[in-house]
Amino acid sequence: MTAEARIQDMAARARRASATLAQLPAERTAEALRAAAAAVREQSRAILAANAEDMANASALSAAIRDRLMLDGPRVEGIAAALEAVAALPSPLGQEIDRSTRPNGLVLQRVRVPIGVVGIIFESRPNVTADAGALCLRAGNAAILRGGSEARASNRALHAALLQGLSETGLPEAAIQLVDDPDRALVGAMLRAAGAIDLIIPRGGRSLVAAVQQDARVPVLAHLDGNNHVYVHAAADPEMARRIVLDAKLRRMGVCGAMETLLIDAAFPAAAALVGDLLARGCEVRGDRRAQALDPQVEPADEQDWNTEYLDAICSVAIVDGLEAALAHIAAHGSGHTDAIVTADQDVADRFLDRVDSAIVLHNASTQFADGGEFGLGAEIGIATGRLHARGPVALEGLTTYKWVGRGTGQVRG
Amino acid sequence: MTAEARIQDMAARARRASATLAQLPAERTAEALRAAAAAVREQSRAILAANAEDMANASALSAAIRDRLMLDGPRVEGIAAALEAVAALPSPLGQEIDRSTRPNGLVLQRVRVPIGVVGIIFESRPNVTADAGALCLRAGNAAILRGGSEARASNRALHAALLQGLSETGLPEAAIQLVDDPDRALVGAMLRAAGAIDLIIPRGGRSLVAAVQQDARVPVLAHLDGNNHVYVHAAADPEMARRIVLDAKLRRMGVCGAMETLLIDAAFPAAAALVGDLLARGCEVRGDRRAQALDPQVEPADEQDWNTEYLDAICSVAIVDGLEAALAHIAAHGSGHTDAIVTADQDVADRFLDRVDSAIVLHNASTQFADGGEFGLGAEIGIATGRLHARGPVALEGLTTYKWVGRGTGQVRG
Repeated sequence: MTAEARIQDMAARARRASATLAQLPAERTAEALRAAAAAVREQSRAILAANAEDMANASALSAAIRDRLMLDGPRVEGIAAALEAVAALPSPLGQEIDRSTRPNGLVLQRVRVPIGVVGIIFESRPNVTADAGALCLRAGNAAILRGGSEARASNRALHAALLQGLSETGLPEAAIQLVDDPDRALVGAMLRAAGAIDLIIPRGGRSLVAAVQQDARVPVLAHLDGNNHVYVHAAADPEMARRIVLDAKLRRMGVCGAMETLLIDAAFPAAAALVGDLLARGCEVRGDRRAQALDPQVEPADEQDWNTEYLDAICSVAIVDGLEAALAHIAAHGSGHTDAIVTADQDVADRFLDRVDSAIVLHNASTQFADGGEFGLGAEIGIATGRLHARGPVALEGLTTYKWVGRGTGQVRG
Repeated sequence: MTAEARIQDMAARARRASATLAQLPAERTAEALRAAAAAVREQSRAILAANAEDMANASALSAAIRDRLMLDGPRVEGIAAALEAVAALPSPLGQEIDRSTRPNGLVLQRVRVPIGVVGIIFESRPNVTADAGALCLRAGNAAILRGGSEARASNRALHAALLQGLSETGLPEAAIQLVDDPDRALVGAMLRAAGAIDLIIPRGGRSLVAAVQQDARVPVLAHLDGNNHVYVHAAADPEMARRIVLDAKLRRMGVCGAMETLLIDAAFPAAAALVGDLLARGCEVRGDRRAQALDPQVEPADEQDWNTEYLDAICSVAIVDGLEAALAHIAAHGSGHTDAIVTADQDVADRFLDRVDSAIVLHNASTQFADGGEFGLGAEIGIATGRLHARGPVALEGLTTYKWVGRGTGQVRG
């Protein structure tokens, strides 16, 4: 069979599974996920053995990739707990978005329904097999999962536990399928399967996401860059600014919500202390001319720095003259992910929140809150930096669509 | 300049215009549209002269295309009135979708914002220039319009009136741009302008939409087929069934909401009368074996008939054994646009509405209600048959996205 035929076949089985899911009470997917969590715990030795096999084959890979790939007892327990957490989320299905009664008496509702068949393409983290499969299922969708070849044995072992949960609770096994063949032509076939797969979600680094966006014919919900800014306004409380800036940059440097550029208002009185705090914690600072004047350790920033998502202990710093200059900097260099202002001036804050056109805009809070869990969504399938369908943290609701339901009494257009 | 460079240049101007629009009160776009309506009326002689030029060049085109292309006094007045109607629609911008307060005190809102830059690709109807430009503008977006070459002079004249409305009210003229060069490479450049254009909406026949979907790198909001069904259940009131079936098929046959296949339950007592009513009104009926037995004028349907959107005085008719058979027929042959059931049995109706996975599902109402105006949206940019972002009739809300706005008091993840 060609790659196309294999994916079309998987997608057709997924479509039938999604039709079956659509007829079941939402509680059934929660039961299946709880059963899958139990199966993960039961099979933890097999999962760890499979992971050891992947790790043995991964000796040539970077330490960062090996860390993402590695499973141990606590991480396996974390996977099981995450399945239970998704099971506990309220189902969005059947929710009424709005309702109206037309002058002719026709009653119209918009009601949330599953998207259908969702393809997930991811890299080395095996937990994505369980997390993404669970979120898709809980929102009533069938998932086709394609993990990295370096995690093949781990993904297969975790998928087996998911299948056990599905079959123990009478759900179709085709609801969560794994593309368990390293042939890269299968990824291409997924991306071109418009009509058979309804949505592709790439989860991984920039190169994976960009490649998916380039080749996909299926709609893509993607996270690209998180080149996030914190603007410390003249009227910012210096202690609050310090706390937010250090957290935004240094709490975790590799997450997409990390601050990458600090904009300090020229009228903010404690700029040197702020930069000194970053430097004192081992963060390299690259600044414009005025930022360099604050501390001899500040290196010169070049034009590329303003566009760079370091994901590392590096921060670019620009001194800006007021709100308009900060907005202009963010418009020119931001990636539309998460941008924050620190200020005690409510009017300036409102203007910032209104005019920064990013998925997430924050006042007096750290950019590191850019996370579905922190937003109260219970989990997230990712953060979307595109502009359509869903924006920012995406969880169950973003994995649904809606239909219009009209109830009449014989109305015709006439 | 290459086609790519020209489109990138237009899109960059559109992006700046959309940023300007985002800073203005929503009332300003309404004012601009009222001024544009006045300009359309003022310039109606010039518009009609331009249209006469297009019509003179269109003598080789089909009567249907010439009818879509043709403007006269009432049609120009209709365009002006439509601009005023869009101006009168409430702006969705700034609407709060939801709000929550996190345990740490962070207040999160989702607020509607414009999508940004929208490309519209359409065919011979010049009124789309005004309608689509107006809807995009009212939702705060900049529009890049590309009409059919057969309507070039008409589109240019209508665009001039829109520009007058923009300039008279101080809005940037780049908010509504017309790609006024028949070079088809410009369309390709629009479709590939991912990041510069946020959304493409094709408006036209199936071949246009399919070509756009095939080539686009920019997300597409599209209407494809409307292969719509009416299922007349055993418990349908015969008189209501007759009224709905005749309206759904024959009120207007060329609209996407027209019924194309009639499913009659084998237990419905008045099947022959229903088919006879269609035949008596000059509608060709193509049926399965049991439908053919109802009337000697019923022609045999072949497999292709069940998948065909006739948009004509032709109806395919299948006799089905109960709800499950009707659902199976729709699942196998439907296009996910609009499907209706006629029945007095509320339980059967609810099961139909729940299980048919189409953008619009109706009980005891004609499929010809599939229309933004009829749904109370005031207008429509089109009907979306895809599953993401917006489904069914799309008007102002579908031309927006949202952002997350978080208001804190110094919160950090810690």
